[in-house]
Amino acid sequence: MRIALAQVNSTVGDLDSNCDAVIAWTARAVAARARVVVFPEMMLTGYPVEDLALRASFVDASIAALDRTAARLAADGLGEIAVVVGYLDRKAGIRPRVGLPTGAPLDAAAVLYGGNVVLKSAKHHLPNYGVFDEFRYFVPGDVLPVFRLAAGSGEAVDVAVAVCEDLWQEGGPVSVARQAGAGLLVVPNASPYERGKGTERVELCLRRGAEAGAALAYVNLVGGQDELVFDGDSIVVDGAGAVVARGPQFEETLVVVDLELPAADQALTDGDSPADACDGTTMTIRRVTLPAAGQAPAGSAETRALWPRLDDLAEVYRALVLGTRDYVVKNGFSSAILALSGGIDSALTATIAADAIGADRVHVVLMPSKYSSPHSVSDAEELVKRQGVQARTIPIASVVAAFDHELHLSGMAEENLQARVRGMILMALSNAEGHLVLTTGNKSELATGYSTLYGDSAGGFAPIKDVLKTLVWDLARWRNQQAAATGEDEPIPENSITKPPSAELRPGQLDTDSLPDYAILDALLDDYVEKDLGAAELAAVGYDPALVERVIGLVDRAEYKRRQYPPGPKITVKNFGRDRRLPITSRWHEPFAG
Amino acid sequence: MRIALAQVNSTVGDLDSNCDAVIAWTARAVAARARVVVFPEMMLTGYPVEDLALRASFVDASIAALDRTAARLAADGLGEIAVVVGYLDRKAGIRPRVGLPTGAPLDAAAVLYGGNVVLKSAKHHLPNYGVFDEFRYFVPGDVLPVFRLAAGSGEAVDVAVAVCEDLWQEGGPVSVARQAGAGLLVVPNASPYERGKGTERVELCLRRGAEAGAALAYVNLVGGQDELVFDGDSIVVDGAGAVVARGPQFEETLVVVDLELPAADQALTDGDSPADACDGTTMTIRRVTLPAAGQAPAGSAETRALWPRLDDLAEVYRALVLGTRDYVVKNGFSSAILALSGGIDSALTATIAADAIGADRVHVVLMPSKYSSPHSVSDAEELVKRQGVQARTIPIASVVAAFDHELHLSGMAEENLQARVRGMILMALSNAEGHLVLTTGNKSELATGYSTLYGDSAGGFAPIKDVLKTLVWDLARWRNQQAAATGEDEPIPENSITKPPSAELRPGQLDTDSLPDYAILDALLDDYVEKDLGAAELAAVGYDPALVERVIGLVDRAEYKRRQYPPGPKITVKNFGRDRRLPITSRWHEPFAG
Repeated sequence: MRIALAQVNSTVGDLDSNCDAVIAWTARAVAARARVVVFPEMMLTGYPVEDLALRASFVDASIAALDRTAARLAADGLGEIAVVVGYLDRKAGIRPRVGLPTGAPLDAAAVLYGGNVVLKSAKHHLPNYGVFDEFRYFVPGDVLPVFRLAAGSGEAVDVAVAVCEDLWQEGGPVSVARQAGAGLLVVPNASPYERGKGTERVELCLRRGAEAGAALAYVNLVGGQDELVFDGDSIVVDGAGAVVARGPQFEETLVVVDLELPAADQALTDGDSPADACDGTTMTIRRVTLPAAGQAPAGSAETRALWPRLDDLAEVYRALVLGTRDYVVKNGFSSAILALSGGIDSALTATIAADAIGADRVHVVLMPSKYSSPHSVSDAEELVKRQGVQARTIPIASVVAAFDHELHLSGMAEENLQARVRGMILMALSNAEGHLVLTTGNKSELATGYSTLYGDSAGGFAPIKDVLKTLVWDLARWRNQQAAATGEDEPIPENSITKPPSAELRPGQLDTDSLPDYAILDALLDDYVEKDLGAAELAAVGYDPALVERVIGLVDRAEYKRRQYPPGPKITVKNFGRDRRLPITSRWHEPFAG
Repeated sequence: MRIALAQVNSTVGDLDSNCDAVIAWTARAVAARARVVVFPEMMLTGYPVEDLALRASFVDASIAALDRTAARLAADGLGEIAVVVGYLDRKAGIRPRVGLPTGAPLDAAAVLYGGNVVLKSAKHHLPNYGVFDEFRYFVPGDVLPVFRLAAGSGEAVDVAVAVCEDLWQEGGPVSVARQAGAGLLVVPNASPYERGKGTERVELCLRRGAEAGAALAYVNLVGGQDELVFDGDSIVVDGAGAVVARGPQFEETLVVVDLELPAADQALTDGDSPADACDGTTMTIRRVTLPAAGQAPAGSAETRALWPRLDDLAEVYRALVLGTRDYVVKNGFSSAILALSGGIDSALTATIAADAIGADRVHVVLMPSKYSSPHSVSDAEELVKRQGVQARTIPIASVVAAFDHELHLSGMAEENLQARVRGMILMALSNAEGHLVLTTGNKSELATGYSTLYGDSAGGFAPIKDVLKTLVWDLARWRNQQAAATGEDEPIPENSITKPPSAELRPGQLDTDSLPDYAILDALLDDYVEKDLGAAELAAVGYDPALVERVIGLVDRAEYKRRQYPPGPKITVKNFGRDRRLPITSRWHEPFAG
């Protein structure tokens, strides 16, 4: 049987456009002779909708959009393909958890056929860790839908539906799919990108496919939504445990694949039957047979199932570009602006922005001060020349002097003043010309508080917020190599990559005056922030205890700055955002052996 | 039997000081001849600890602090009182939910006696709505501890322990306490203040006391923690359903009350027995008999059980003062600074700050511009004179001119520039002198985006962030009346209260140029933001549909500004913070009938 996986980019709240996308991509699936097309989790509403899930008017709109989609499919002659689509629904007649409305929201999936909604179900396992808060929004689904579809050979196959987290946790739909004897389990997902997550997903699909005793088709969303980037990378595993399809990363695509599926057990008839979910709960298997459609020969149209995988740096870079592009576009901006210092952070941010929305829509401002070195200006100008971004120069000396005349500042107050004057100039240009301000800080700075609130931290989106400094360098080198490999100009001046990093807020300043070497710092930050190791554990794995104490102190004291930082694309297991929630007011100090 | 409720102020992460507080307040309870003293939820760690609950070193420290507290109590001769204290523990030997560490955290309570930890239990119902994320952190407790204590009369009474949310939800510990035949149910709490919540809590205590068939002692935390303010207001309901104790609001106190309690059923012996929690789960009743202590006559020391209730405006004002004071003090600041414009928002914020930390530690900056009216300066100066805060004047004209020389701004960019110059001056003085910057924006502004990012929204803490403009005026009038009633100077100049509000960023500007009348706006904001009504529902309750559309548009578009706003004390059912989580990127528009 030929199936299609529509890994597409939906937008939160834009139900009409998302419905249009279902129609358009279903038409492609029909043209490709697929019998089933599967869309991502919460396709019609976008994902995650957060507290919109609790608003009655929004749930009503989602349910109406589902019905409208079913009707439009039939009206457009697309009624003879089974369409599996995620949306937001509600469950009536139960007493929901405290905090939920009476009609408790469901992270739902429906099967559309012949102009009708023929089956409805909802996510059974609700993730409530990391960036996810699904216990806040949803009640668990308890139905495993199984639809019977005449296969290309004339025999019928049974297809079950589970949603996203149902694949990640034990028991539930995967276990019930085996009891139901389904030949194929399709799984709409909205799984955010994290570095290296693709390998984990393939292993999971293989394991769960074996547990379900079925082929498994995993479809993931594509696109940026605030801090999250959905990377596509859809997967199909056949009944023998072979990976037979792998979608591209960070791109909308229709993955089309032919599967040999076992014939449905004709003894099983339509209707409900109970099943043990093997997780302490009971589920209902709900079976529906779809009418046999005209049997177009599947071989008559092209399939494409296997895309190559990006290497590590390529996938990180693509995530940053897609996250930035979608933040700009989905929020209605047509251009972006940032400060270009000649340093590596702003050079990489400008390059990401140019790759995301085009160099002609990227505005950069050179804002030299009396402490700026000659190479700062020349390195920035060199980048402008290579990339063709829109550049202007606004010296900050006169404004700083005017402040200084009123305030007579010195030390850190004077250093921060320069950063804040630059931030204000960017914001003023944003107000006057409508650009989105991009913030150029990296994760090492954000972790240690090595930034100025309302200065270099000002802006609407921070493309490299979740990128440690050492990875900033790696990405810059990688991007230049990519250009060189295709015969293009290297976008980033070599000197921006190789010179010692400096904030240039006082004469001769270097980052290493205040921070340890970035190679050591970044390793320690990874262990403290992402792995959540305590001080004793950090010392035990070999870090200098004095350094541990110093860095932990920096990280803990900077929490208030991070709270006011703009969003930026998550690429790690734990970004500074919803992934890591710590109090600002805290007197906790990690205990030290010494 | 005499019991004591220690409604005290613990600090997140300061385990040593919190342990000291348990010792000190237990000594007072012993001096008052109480047989039991009950501390708030998570007393030893502070509450909420957020992701610190997931860090092994922090859980270890909490468990060690509990053992240390038990030993210190005995060493200080405080071993013969039963001490009920909240702390953070872990549950071994279970497979925790995905996202939790192997030793899954518990929101625990222990009974200490004779230098030992004699009973441990944990919260059974985990709130995961509003500001709470407890499914992220904890597994549910399944033990109802019951300790038997010789009463003053020589008879024994059985005392059960439940934790906070266990009182708010059906079934669980309350139901099991009835099955266990407990005569008294004590409940450590960390329940954040919301306007009018006291009435709801009393009704709840009466209902749950009746359901448990027992007297009920509810002890609440006091103090500010980031956006939350815990208001104390502890409650004791006797077995006959009478409120026999009510602690003060927003103050640390020992509430001491004598209760007639039913004699324990001597047929029930120590050990475990299963019980139906009436919520689909099973719990264990765990009984321990504490050795009889020396029976000091209870009547020989003073009791104080009933404090008067504050009226509505008084309790809101006290919440703002306590939230502000604790943010300043617990974060190690000794002073605060804010911009004083002559308008009502900054006047009220300055007054709250002066009441919180003393006028001598409050610094105000008058920053007139060419658009400032004469009364702005004179009203601000009048407040300075009345309150004795530390004042200075820094005109912004020369700095604005310097920017203008570089940027040639007009319109909103120029208006915002003035606000940002003021924000920068405050931040510079904070850097130079170490003050916490207070932000003076109110909830109506924050809702509609009527503020300048990095301008008037700059700062570390925003005392009136959750106060709608109409309530700002009410609180100002109330504060003046309080002063008048006690013969003091009215702190807020009348003209700041009565004049039409204006941002004074262009000639003759008034808030009403951009916003509807505040009485209508605030009512609409309350219905849209706090009650989450959709556009059709708002029109149905009588708002002008065009106004609804305009205001909803303002609120929805301002989400990105709110994300970068500093924290401030929550006083409503839904503050702009963890209570309301909406995507920045959203194309959802409430549907309009028209």
